[in-house]
Amino acid sequence: MSQLDKTIGEIQSLDDDAMRAARARQDQLTKPQGALGRLEALSIQIAGITRDARPRFKQPALITMAGDHGVARQGVSAYPAEVTPQMVFNFLRGGAAINVLARHVGARVVVVDMGVASDLPAHPELVNCKIAKGTRDFSIGPAMTRDEARRAVEAGIAVVTQEIAPSTGAQSGADIIGTGDMGIGNTTPSSAIVAAITRRAVAQVTGRGTGVDDAGLARKIATIERALALNKPNPNDALDVLSDVGGFEIGGLAGVMIGAAARRVPVVIDGFISGAAALIAYGLAPSVQPYLIAAHRSVEIGHRAMLEHLRLEPLLDLDLRLGEGTGAALGISICIAACKILDEMATFGEAGVAEKG
Amino acid sequence: MSQLDKTIGEIQSLDDDAMRAARARQDQLTKPQGALGRLEALSIQIAGITRDARPRFKQPALITMAGDHGVARQGVSAYPAEVTPQMVFNFLRGGAAINVLARHVGARVVVVDMGVASDLPAHPELVNCKIAKGTRDFSIGPAMTRDEARRAVEAGIAVVTQEIAPSTGAQSGADIIGTGDMGIGNTTPSSAIVAAITRRAVAQVTGRGTGVDDAGLARKIATIERALALNKPNPNDALDVLSDVGGFEIGGLAGVMIGAAARRVPVVIDGFISGAAALIAYGLAPSVQPYLIAAHRSVEIGHRAMLEHLRLEPLLDLDLRLGEGTGAALGISICIAACKILDEMATFGEAGVAEKG
Repeated sequence: MSQLDKTIGEIQSLDDDAMRAARARQDQLTKPQGALGRLEALSIQIAGITRDARPRFKQPALITMAGDHGVARQGVSAYPAEVTPQMVFNFLRGGAAINVLARHVGARVVVVDMGVASDLPAHPELVNCKIAKGTRDFSIGPAMTRDEARRAVEAGIAVVTQEIAPSTGAQSGADIIGTGDMGIGNTTPSSAIVAAITRRAVAQVTGRGTGVDDAGLARKIATIERALALNKPNPNDALDVLSDVGGFEIGGLAGVMIGAAARRVPVVIDGFISGAAALIAYGLAPSVQPYLIAAHRSVEIGHRAMLEHLRLEPLLDLDLRLGEGTGAALGISICIAACKILDEMATFGEAGVAEKG
Repeated sequence: MSQLDKTIGEIQSLDDDAMRAARARQDQLTKPQGALGRLEALSIQIAGITRDARPRFKQPALITMAGDHGVARQGVSAYPAEVTPQMVFNFLRGGAAINVLARHVGARVVVVDMGVASDLPAHPELVNCKIAKGTRDFSIGPAMTRDEARRAVEAGIAVVTQEIAPSTGAQSGADIIGTGDMGIGNTTPSSAIVAAITRRAVAQVTGRGTGVDDAGLARKIATIERALALNKPNPNDALDVLSDVGGFEIGGLAGVMIGAAARRVPVVIDGFISGAAALIAYGLAPSVQPYLIAAHRSVEIGHRAMLEHLRLEPLLDLDLRLGEGTGAALGISICIAACKILDEMATFGEAGVAEKG
């Protein structure tokens, strides 16, 4: 049995007892029942995920995975491909948006090279899981082999498992995970994945990414249509979709989601690229769904189709379209707030407050 | 000239230079221009408010004002009136939702008695601005005199001015303010205010508050309709509306908004009751509008009409309907995140990242 199949087999359903206990406690806290809306529901979901009626978080981690895309040669992005490694260095130096927001919410950032096209120098905070130096151009053939696709997902499982229960004592284990991505051109595979899996027209799920003009958008749509016609991904076989039109960071993030679910750790998924990864994870293991929390609704048009397919309602809607895990960072803060409400508020009895008449 | 008129006269427009500088810096940060959506716009607004191209916050404060309502005797709330002082004690002991969320976002909570119906014992952290022991039942006459209405607003100005520049050295000055409320029955005056000022039908802007049943909702609507017919508040005279159908905590919160704007401090307004206060503040001083940031969209149906009238787009939509400042606390965290992005991110030049091709 492969590591992937073994991990999928370890995913259990949410814990009903913890959810019942959390619901009962929410209803005893000094507020009208349900008055904190989605924060209450979120805390109960997380109780079920963690099997703990009063979950507390000590160490959030944002896992940001980077990869390059052969299809970027087709002129589908507004930025040159060398920006991928440049931004990886920016992450490692702490100057990117994800670093700022991770500090704001008290999370650490884990930067992973899943398949950047250039050689990156060793760095103590860079996790090297490079499957290959970028995917192949999927407008002329599959992006990667099926074996590479599986290895990308399994690398994601290994990374998140190591973050949750580090083998060295140097750092504490992550207890809530956010996902993020970096990869010039990676809205193109993400649109291809959502088109393939949800069987929608490419034009319906393809947006401007970092900001291509009208001609760039038309080229992007035509490129994806050509790729789907050529590679014929099987929507019922997520590894086939990933290998035909995916990306290494997308596969890695799918693995992060599966690995976190297997360890009963909540996963806050970022925007469009993380959404594509979630489609792959959900295709491989539908049991991952209740472990996923959608941080925000991306500006990217195809994100709505993803969230609908995944039956997820995002927490935030702030017109974000950056990726990196920026939305996930803010979403993690909302999750922690929801759990603090559940854990720290006084009950009617403790506070001597009269209940509803 | 009254203190109120003097303070209104001190409100200036947002600072164009600071906003231009903030916009220019946002466009040089290592992300596609505009990719952080509303966070970027928010940081620029706050730059204009604070007259600082890189605003930094050290001390957020949530000002939660409490008051009782004579109209509660008409059976318009699901909770008995004694809950107002009980919740004030809960705030002072740190067990309420607002305390939990204030700790989560690093804010202090300032609890103000604007008009609780009972005598509250002195407490070092309770600010006593009691105008009267609850308003009068506005279904049989005005809620308060015009002089009381003015004094409530001026008390709010005094409280926020003291928080921003404390006269003792014991605590640092607040540099971003959130508003909150506590008062059994206070969705009723809030619905009356929004109906009076926006000239909408009472049934269109009246919801279930903390959870009245169908009969309670019908009673609430009929009570407000009777009050408006009897007291005839003048929609063009916000002090008249406040005195006819308002509340002491609502007047106080209007003063907080006006006082903060006069000191160039951003005000993050909570949900429905803070929205009613914002309608009063805006009626008294339209120049307050650009200083207001709407934290969230409340479940209370009349909140949409308020936000539309105030031309504010809320940051969050989490089905909250608690009040206390809970939504404002989360909104403050988003504002701080937005300003940290502006201040802490590396520019393309600093990070050696290629710009858009």
